[in-house]
Amino acid sequence: MNALTRLGMVSESPSNAQTTRNAEGAEATKDYFIERDGMRFAGMHLLVDLWEAEGLDDPAAIEAALREGATAARATILHGHFHHFSPSGGVSGVLVLAESHISIHTWPERGFAAIDIFMCGACDPYRALPALKAAFRARRVAVSEQRRGVVR
Amino acid sequence: MNALTRLGMVSESPSNAQTTRNAEGAEATKDYFIERDGMRFAGMHLLVDLWEAEGLDDPAAIEAALREGATAARATILHGHFHHFSPSGGVSGVLVLAESHISIHTWPERGFAAIDIFMCGACDPYRALPALKAAFRARRVAVSEQRRGVVR
Repeated sequence: MNALTRLGMVSESPSNAQTTRNAEGAEATKDYFIERDGMRFAGMHLLVDLWEAEGLDDPAAIEAALREGATAARATILHGHFHHFSPSGGVSGVLVLAESHISIHTWPERGFAAIDIFMCGACDPYRALPALKAAFRARRVAVSEQRRGVVR
Repeated sequence: MNALTRLGMVSESPSNAQTTRNAEGAEATKDYFIERDGMRFAGMHLLVDLWEAEGLDDPAAIEAALREGATAARATILHGHFHHFSPSGGVSGVLVLAESHISIHTWPERGFAAIDIFMCGACDPYRALPALKAAFRARRVAVSEQRRGVVR
């Protein structure tokens, strides 16, 4: 897979087809806009708020969790950066993906973390959720789905 | 300013005060949760979709625009990474801030860009908007405000 190409698809093999379909039935057009439920849009963006979560002050473990989530969603990781704050111990980090990004900001003192999973093309951000939920063992998880770039 | 400390505030001078107030009247508590309109939450997250925009395939100019926006919001930039895709020419990039992040993903072939401005503490993400609007000269801008980590 050529990481320099915005993919949104698992395979880059040449094809005359203008669209591909992922396992959930969402179509990805050639410019990687998605078509689902009669809507055409650039990408699916999940805003995930975790409460009563653990492991929010360990940058290495947090990075591993995000990488596992990205891999589960079949995304291509281009770059990662994780910052550990003091004295709070909180972590801010991001994975830049060929299919957009996953970011996290944690507040260990509150047991809270804000995660964003933004994926375009044929990658499904929901596939990243199980790994993240398992890693942080949050007792309360709020997920808001935002469709970015809806074509009107 | 010690960039290793999650600030959310312009000044780090020692104070006995548990809260500070920014120009818009929003209070930032000592763990940098915000109190506004009777709500307490971790941060303000703007989802900005730009249409009929220009300059979406120039990574250097895009980075400069995001940095200008971050500076206008008085945020502390910790790290930046910008990726230029081919053949589409699209750019994906992020600034990791002490106050969270600003990210962008562009689709030059569609004249579309998806920007996220997530700021906690006393930084106001709306202050970053003018620089971004000016840089991309989008004819249509949709802004969705999401409050992350609302305390119930």
